[in-house]
Parts: sequence; C-alpha cells; structure tokens
Amino acid sequence: MKLRYNELVLPLEFAFTISRSSQSVARTVYVELTSPDSAAVGLRGIGEAVPSAFYGEDSETVRHFYQQLLEDRALEGLAVHNLQNLEERLARYPDNRAAKSGLQMAFQDLCGKTVNLPLYKLWGLDSNRVPKTSYTIGIDDPKRVAQKIELALSRGFDVIKIKLGGANDLETMKIIRRMAPEARLRVDANAAWGVDEAVAKCEALKPYEVEFVEAPLRLDSPEEHYRRLKAASSIPLMADENCHGLGDIPRCAELFHAINLKHTKTGGLEEARRMIHAARAHDLKIMLGGFLETSISVTAMAHLAPLVDYCDLDACLLIANDPYLGLEFEGSRFKLPERPGIGVVPRTK
Amino acid sequence: MKLRYNELVLPLEFAFTISRSSQSVARTVYVELTSPDSAAVGLRGIGEAVPSAFYGEDSETVRHFYQQLLEDRALEGLAVHNLQNLEERLARYPDNRAAKSGLQMAFQDLCGKTVNLPLYKLWGLDSNRVPKTSYTIGIDDPKRVAQKIELALSRGFDVIKIKLGGANDLETMKIIRRMAPEARLRVDANAAWGVDEAVAKCEALKPYEVEFVEAPLRLDSPEEHYRRLKAASSIPLMADENCHGLGDIPRCAELFHAINLKHTKTGGLEEARRMIHAARAHDLKIMLGGFLETSISVTAMAHLAPLVDYCDLDACLLIANDPYLGLEFEGSRFKLPERPGIGVVPRTK
Repeated sequence: MKLRYNELVLPLEFAFTISRSSQSVARTVYVELTSPDSAAVGLRGIGEAVPSAFYGEDSETVRHFYQQLLEDRALEGLAVHNLQNLEERLARYPDNRAAKSGLQMAFQDLCGKTVNLPLYKLWGLDSNRVPKTSYTIGIDDPKRVAQKIELALSRGFDVIKIKLGGANDLETMKIIRRMAPEARLRVDANAAWGVDEAVAKCEALKPYEVEFVEAPLRLDSPEEHYRRLKAASSIPLMADENCHGLGDIPRCAELFHAINLKHTKTGGLEEARRMIHAARAHDLKIMLGGFLETSISVTAMAHLAPLVDYCDLDACLLIANDPYLGLEFEGSRFKLPERPGIGVVPRTK
Repeated sequence: MKLRYNELVLPLEFAFTISRSSQSVARTVYVELTSPDSAAVGLRGIGEAVPSAFYGEDSETVRHFYQQLLEDRALEGLAVHNLQNLEERLARYPDNRAAKSGLQMAFQDLCGKTVNLPLYKLWGLDSNRVPKTSYTIGIDDPKRVAQKIELALSRGFDVIKIKLGGANDLETMKIIRRMAPEARLRVDANAAWGVDEAVAKCEALKPYEVEFVEAPLRLDSPEEHYRRLKAASSIPLMADENCHGLGDIPRCAELFHAINLKHTKTGGLEEARRMIHAARAHDLKIMLGGFLETSISVTAMAHLAPLVDYCDLDACLLIANDPYLGLEFEGSRFKLPERPGIGVVPRTK
C-alpha cells in the first residue's frame, strides 16, 4: 500500500485552556492510503493522526513515524481488509499511538470505500442509536465562560462538558447551571485535583446534577486515592489518562464508573472497539472523545457511537475552519454520514 | 426479511458419549434469510441452529421460536448490515440462544454475500492466523478408543481432545499418549468431577502433558471449589458451561485460565466476538468449540479463528454425511473458505 501524509495546521475558534495547558492552534497529520488491489482502484483511504504532547507525540513525531514506515517498506504487500495484519505490522513499532491510529483510520476508510459501505454499516451498527454529543467549555474567566455558554446554547447544544481544575470552578458551575438549567452537564478536571480536593469538589458539584466527573485525580495519585474517591463520590467517575488500551479495562472497572476513548490513546479504532466490548463485560459506561482535530478524526470515531453511552465529539467544532465535512450536527445531535468509509469529504466554501 | 427453516437430521459416525449422555444422531435446524434490499437481490443467507438439551433447547423449540418470530413479524423492516438492530429485536425474546445464533448466522452470511466478502475479511481478520483444530474422542472402552485414535492419526490429526469423566480415564490417557506421543492432547471432563477428584485427576494427568482440562468440576460446585482447583492444578483450566455471555468473562478470569465459545451458548457470533475481546483484556486463552453440527455452523465459527488460541472445530467431521461443504481440513489444519459470507455450499456427491 502507498502512504502519503502532510501536516494540518488548525487555528482554534477560542484559545483552548484546560487545567494543565493552553493553546490557540492545533497541528494534526493528514494520512492517505492507496492500494494496488483491483477492488481499491481509484480509491483513497484518508485518516488523521491527532498527537498530544501529553503522550509524547506531536505532528513532527507522527511524520517521522510515517517516514520510518516508508523506509522500512512496512506496508508492502498489505491486503485491503486485512486489518489484523496491519495491526501486527504496526505492533512491531513501540508507542506512536496517534500516528498508528491515523494510519489505521485511513486503512478502514479504504475498506469501507472498497465495499461501498459507511464504517458503521461495515461494523453492523445501528445509526439510530447514536447518543448526543457534548460541547466543551474550556477554563476561562467567568465572563468569557458566560459568552461561550451563550454561543453553545444558541447553536443548540444541550449537553455541555465543562473543564474544571482552574481557580473559579464553582463559580463557573453556578453560571452555567443558571444559564442552562435544562442542559446535561459533565465535568472534566483533567487530572487537576488531589484526593481531598476531589472528594470536596464532587460533594460541592452535587447540586449541579452533573452526569460524571472525568479525570478527577492527579496522575501521580496512588490507587488507594482512586478507591477512596470512588467510595466517597455520589457522582460517577470517568477514566481518561488511566485508560489507554484493552489491558487497562479490568483495573478501570475497579476504580471508575466509566471510560473515555480517544484516537490519541487507543492506537486505532479497532482497539477502541475491543475496549468497548471489554468495558461492557464490566458494566462500565463508555464515552467517545477526541482532542483538537478535524472532521476526519471525529467522524471516524463517531462510527462507533451506536455502541456507547456518551459522546464528546465536538472537537471539529472547536477549530476555526474545519477543512472537511463529515458528521452533520444539529446542536448536540449528529448524524453519521451515509458516504462510504469514514464518509468525509473536503469542505467546499 | 424473509425467514425459512427446516430440521436437519444428522446420523453420527460413532455414537457420541460424554460424561453425562450418549447419542447416535444429532438434530439441528437449517435457517435461511432473504431480504428485499436491492443489494441482496438473489442472495440467500444461510445458518444453522445447534440446540442442546443441556441448555433447554432442541430442534423443536428452535422451530417453535422461528414460528413465533414469523407470527410476530419480528424481522419486518430489518435492514441488511444492521446487526445491532437484529440483536435488539432478538433480545426481546428470552433464552433460545441456539435459535438466535442460527438466525444471526444466516444474517451475517447474507451481509458477507451482499458485499462479496468472506466473513473473516468483512471482520478485518487474517486467515493465516488460524490455529489447528483438535479431533474429539468420546468416552468408550479402551479398545474402541484405540481404534478411534488410529483413525484420527490416519486422517492427519495431531491435536486430540479426549472426553474424560468415565470409568477408564487414566487408562484412556495411557493408550492415547502411547499411540500419539507427539500429538497435542486436551482433556474435557464435561463437568464430571467433584473437587477432590478433579485435583487428583489434574495431578495424575501431569505426565501426559495436556494443554488444558476443560469443564473439570460438577456444575453444582461452589465457587470456592473452583478457586481450590485453580490453585492446585498445574494444568490450565478451561470454562465451558460456566461461560455463556459477555458478563461471565470477569468471573471466568478469576476461576479459569481459558474459555470455550460455542454457538449453543453465546446466542450469536457477535456475542462470541465481544467475549473474545473481553477475554483478552483479562489474558484469558480462548477456544472456539461446537456441538454436533454441519459445516454451516462450524465454518461460521471458524471465521473468528484468527482471533483465538485453540480450535475444537471437528463437529462436522463427527457426523456421518455432512450435507455442506465449508472448511477444508487437512488433518488438524483447516483453511477458511474464500467464498462470500460463511462460504458454505451444498456438498455434491
């Protein structure tokens, strides 16, 4: 198979601030695969690698990884549909989960296009079962938070995810709940709190009726802190940075009520699917999330939405001008594309 | 979708005796699905329900279930590829796992035929990764066991599964190991033993170098017996009757080293696939098994073989004249068909 790639530079609509960082531009890598297979003639599989510095990747390491694959002829003789073989080839290289994920996305896009089916149909899923998606409000001063909420509500979002872990957590919650009394609210602390603060915050969040608190504890927290928080909190807790691959599921089931799956972590849609099934065996709730990315990556993940409980798939709405068209949003509701593969096409102005 | 079905009466090559029963004929139910969808015109999805009295089903209950579906118009408006919707419709009916499994098999066969791909390709699997299958030797007197082993070896089988739980367990093992010193041996006790006997048998089996012991304990054994046996046995233990659906996986991971998946138990290939992924999260080993069935059911299950460690897919070789052609065996090795869907066709004489 033939691999091409190039960097995408994506200015954000607003500077995006979470508990540990702030940024105004995102850089991802566009990937394209073609195959000499007769069934794939004239077709291009497209994907997007969404690296995060937090996991040791950026657009440069991704491009370096792809360059390495080219030099190693690592995709030579790879057959369309043999995803298991692709995973095996990629498993020979350590790390680089976002890069692997982008490549696998392009591969699966090509598979879907080869049989002229959108991914969700190829996977036997029911597009009528997609949950609503949340819209994300980054950490900001209360006045700016209020402006963003107004914008989100005017765009029809009735599920809102709020980044906490800043200085004004409860004031922020008060503003949002007042402005959006009917909205479903979720909280993401991005691993900002120690256990005492987390226990106190979960208690203080109770009146705001949040669906769950994501990544409440600092990453260096010992397991015992997770257990203490789980025992104390009446709000369900969701794992983010604690949940990367299939092997993490049993432990997450002990320490959390739910997990968040992202391309940046799983190394591919197929691993995400495996994790969904394993999570179900443990009655874990599941969310599909993303980072700062275009409609390619968001839409690819969305094809798994019929299998999950929550979606946090607004990433492509946080960038200022998404070059691609995939999911169609109507506020928090979205529709999976019926086009083959991921179903994403360049956006025409 | 349109559903048709009829009973298959399958005489066995040898009377099949396990610890709790003996039979000389098997009865399964052939299922056929057609869809008015334009992509499926002229195509027939075929499947086979393989009921077991042990799970409260027989060919009559299966046919009764299908009749009920027809009366309820339960498949009306079901779209090709919407497997999730089929599962949801079937979940409204309790029990009847074999019947549901046969129907889902026909549905997936139709999906594969619609896109002209064998199931393993539709699922992204690598046909080069199928493990060998075992050949099963039922309980019998030592002389007959020796004859069967001779037959198995002459047919090229070098992986053999021996049913124990009868009067001559160790004598049987002695004969088999002497006749087949190089063969990979597996033992299935079909839940025949109490914990003391099981501990003793596992100890006594050690010199015969068996890969695992399946279903060692009586089904009324308390959990504590399973824990005791797991702690005592140096031979890996495999769950059969303790492992039906996805929710059983975490507990099986505590009590066993491996699981056996069968249509008769899972209620469908898709549940089997989910169970495989959940089992991997727990480092459980996985075997694909069967009951007494034709190549339809065996071949359908075999498409999952690239994902597992062990295969026990000789069921269609135990019946006297399999009406269908699917897997091609060369002793313990088999090849997945390249025909679309399950890839089974009527056997021409």
